[in-house]
Order: sequence, then structure tokens, then C-alpha cells
Amino acid sequence: MAAQASSFRLALVQLAVGSNKATNLSRAAEKVREAAQNGSKIVALPECFNSPYGTQYFKDYAEEVPAETGQPGPGAGESCKALSQVARECGVFLVGGSIPEVRKGKYYNTSMSFGPDGALLGVFRKVHLFDIDIPGKQKFKESDILSPGDKLLSFDTDWCKVGIGICYDLRFYELASIYGLRGCKLLLYPGAFNTTTGPLHFELLIRGLAANNQLFVAGVSPAQDLTASYHAWGHSMLCNPWGKVVVSADEKEGIVYGEVDLSEVDRVRSQIPVTAQKRWDLYSITDKTNI
Amino acid sequence: MAAQASSFRLALVQLAVGSNKATNLSRAAEKVREAAQNGSKIVALPECFNSPYGTQYFKDYAEEVPAETGQPGPGAGESCKALSQVARECGVFLVGGSIPEVRKGKYYNTSMSFGPDGALLGVFRKVHLFDIDIPGKQKFKESDILSPGDKLLSFDTDWCKVGIGICYDLRFYELASIYGLRGCKLLLYPGAFNTTTGPLHFELLIRGLAANNQLFVAGVSPAQDLTASYHAWGHSMLCNPWGKVVVSADEKEGIVYGEVDLSEVDRVRSQIPVTAQKRWDLYSITDKTNI
Repeated sequence: MAAQASSFRLALVQLAVGSNKATNLSRAAEKVREAAQNGSKIVALPECFNSPYGTQYFKDYAEEVPAETGQPGPGAGESCKALSQVARECGVFLVGGSIPEVRKGKYYNTSMSFGPDGALLGVFRKVHLFDIDIPGKQKFKESDILSPGDKLLSFDTDWCKVGIGICYDLRFYELASIYGLRGCKLLLYPGAFNTTTGPLHFELLIRGLAANNQLFVAGVSPAQDLTASYHAWGHSMLCNPWGKVVVSADEKEGIVYGEVDLSEVDRVRSQIPVTAQKRWDLYSITDKTNI
Repeated sequence: MAAQASSFRLALVQLAVGSNKATNLSRAAEKVREAAQNGSKIVALPECFNSPYGTQYFKDYAEEVPAETGQPGPGAGESCKALSQVARECGVFLVGGSIPEVRKGKYYNTSMSFGPDGALLGVFRKVHLFDIDIPGKQKFKESDILSPGDKLLSFDTDWCKVGIGICYDLRFYELASIYGLRGCKLLLYPGAFNTTTGPLHFELLIRGLAANNQLFVAGVSPAQDLTASYHAWGHSMLCNPWGKVVVSADEKEGIVYGEVDLSEVDRVRSQIPVTAQKRWDLYSITDKTNI
């Protein structure tokens, strides 16, 4: 195996998502092309990028994802096919945000990741459903419609291993710990935080996971649309393994570019060597999905 | 058992620590008295409050801590006795920062906590030793002199269960997770971060642990002394279970008071119920010190 390059450009596509699915798909593809033309090697889309975010939309926009790896077959949904096609066309790794998925009569919030040959690298179904109730501010209950996933997803790229979570999964640092233990150096969270939880916690959670696990962490939000029923926070961002924000967006549509310099991971881990100093004799974190 | 009050005043004593041990002890007692007179129910001192911080000092300032609970016996060191006395005199719970301890020929960074009757509630020996090397900025190797502890410490107070860590232990969120699972609602970290790691991470780590575990977290630093060999960061602070800073100090000597309103713990846990939504079927955190 060839030596891995230590640095690459990551693009976070903060897409303006509307109610027309075909338009969402073509605009997403356009943004992936733009990101690739600007030198990005990994491109990530936001949570729920083919549909407005809201339990009332999930069933109408849901598609089947019949296979979890390999080239999409004839039974794959249009979003899966569109993502595969543009990943291959542009020769990029593409973390396809998430879409509503229907599978054996159940619905999921599902992220598909593709390699530069257009093959599915794996599928991640949101593990922690977003059920919150902040009186007078934000109430949401994904579990009215959705079922939770029961697997994690990490995959190799030309530069490092990447781990995937979706939005509310950010609050469960156990996931990030496990990805860190698996050797991931970049975690990507498509996530539509809102105008209540976004300013409270989006940056804090991302910076915290990055500093605690000494790896890169990015969150990818849809653009804010105050005419929609759900107001996404925006502010897509990349944090480095020191817990510092490398780059971040405002609330509007746009592509955020960040250089992922993996030598920073090695640097922080040698200078503040917490990853080597864990007291596994006193505590342990177990990945039960791997047992 | 009587119903627990839901709110109390916490005092973080950001002590100016000098090289005279007797002076350090008497000044610490004075600050505890002042904090109690101002209504504090739990008072916390900083890491290494009876000695300058530095591996060259630990042996000279070290004391024995012959018993880990109960009233200090005749073999207890002078710091232990002084803390017990002032806790009883003031009728407060006292988290006695930390001191260098000698025990069977080994040295530890040890925190003693006392009840309002002056009895030791328990002892915590720093579990993760501070061995870092940030070239040109901060190098320190506690393990040149110190041995690590191998137990955690949580104890009941009249208001809630409290968990203890020391400084570098802040970086190991597994400890905070375990304390959260044990039912602690307040974590106290005596900690002398420095002028390199302090601005980088002190607030981020405290806020992150508070938000992720939905409990109160405080860090208690010595005051900054630029004439000392080690420059403590100061900035003692209390964060609430939303991850917000309730109150924080600058770098100078002083007492920081924070109201610990435990109903905030219930509020955030009912509004953003992550503690009830953990996917223990997919991952687990094990406290091996309890096995």
C-alpha cells in the first residue's frame, strides 16, 4: 500500500434545501462539482439534503437503499444513483449527508458514503433519534416516524479512516470515542441543528469531540431557511485535533473549505499524549456493534 | 432520609500559593472561613495548595495520609489536620484541592475531601499524570516523581453526589462519564492548568464535560504567580449542565462563588434527554474500579 498523503482539502456543502427533490439533487451535484473543481478530495453534504427537514416530509421523500456497499443496482433510489454518479464523475470521496430511507416498512435517517469510483462504501442510519422538547423554543420527535440504526460506519480513504454520525449523534461522545479507537482521524457529522440548539451546543460539541479525541471533526448543516418549518442553524465547521475551529460558515448557502493536515493529529498526540495515557485498567469503552 | 435541597452556594478558592507551607495552610483556612461566612456550603481549594507546583517540590512538601476516611488520627499530616479542623469549624463540605502525598515510599498528587464534621469522606489520587511536551512552551513530567492513583472518588453531600478528579484528569472524559453514571451532579477538578494549556483547553474541557454529561463541573486553579517556576492559568470556573459558564475568575487570587441549582440538571435532562437516550445496546462504559 502506498504511503498516505498527510494533507487534503475537505469541502462542507452547506446546501439550501427546498421542497423539490429533483432540484435538491441537481443543486447538490452542482455543488459537489464546484467543490471538486476547487481541489476538494472529500466532499460532505448536510443532513436531509434531498428533503425539507420535518417528520411530515420523511415518508414522501423516502427511498430504498437495497445494498449497503458496491455500485448501486437497479433497485437503488434516485438520490443514491445521483450521488454515486457525481462521486465517480468528480473522482471524490462523497459523504452524502443523509436522506429519509424506507426499508422493510420502517423509516430511517440514512447517510450513504461513496468512493471516487462511485461505489457505496457504507451506509449509516442515525443511531440516536432527535426527540427533544425545550418549551417555547424547540420541540421535535423524530421517533414519531423514524427507527434508529444499530450500526456504526467507518471507512478508509486515501488519507485516513473516516467515521460518520448524524446530527444528534454528536451529543453521544461514545460514538466518537469508538471511532477514535478504530483509528479514524476525521469524523463527519451531517447535522441540522436549529436556532435554539445550534447556538447553545453545535460548536461546543464539535470542538469538544475534536479536543478529547485529538482528531478532526466537522459538522455539515443545510443553509438556514426562515420560510421553512424547521430553522437549521447553518454554521458548518471543521475543527482540528487541538479543538480549534479551522473554518466555519455563517447561516447562508455556501461551500466551506478546510485543509485537513493529518500531521496535526500526530503533533497533538505526541505533545499532549492522552491517547497513549488512557487508564484502560480503570475504565473501558466497548464497541458492542463489533462483537 | 430528608428531601435534598435543590440549590446551594459553591466556593472555588483561587489561592495564591507560596513556598511557605505553614502560610499556605493558614491562608487556605482563612479563605475557607471567608467562603463559609458568605454562605458557601461546599468549598473547594486548588491543586497543590500547600506547595508550589513542580516536581522539585513534591518530596519536600509531601505528607502521609494514613487513613482514607474518618477523623484524622495522630499519624495524619498537618495539611490533613488543618483541613479537617476548618471544615468542622465552618460546618462545610471541603474539597481540599490536592497536596503531595508520600505513601509506602511512593509519591502521589492527592485530594482529600471532608464533611462538615471534619471527617475524611475519601481520598483521590490523581489518576492521569501530567506528562506533556509542547516544544518551546510547556514541558512537564509528573511521572518523574509521582505514581498514579488507581481509584475514583465520589461521595454524598446534603445536596447531591460529588465526583473528584485532578487537573489532567479533565482530559479523560471517561472519568466524568463514570461519575455521571454513578449519579454525581457536580464534578470538582482542582487543577493547575498553565498559560499554554489553560487558554487552549481549560474552559473547553470543563464546558464539554458539563454539556455532555448534563451536570455541573468546576475547575479550581491556584492564582497565577509569574515569579514561580510554573505559571498557573487561574480562571477557576463553574459551568452548568447546559455547558454554560456560570461564573469564572481572572488570574488573580480570589474566591469565586457559584449557585449550584440542581433543578437545572433535571431541566436539561428532561428537555434534551440524552442521559435517557444512550444506546447501551451499541456501546458501554465500564468502571473497572468498581468490579
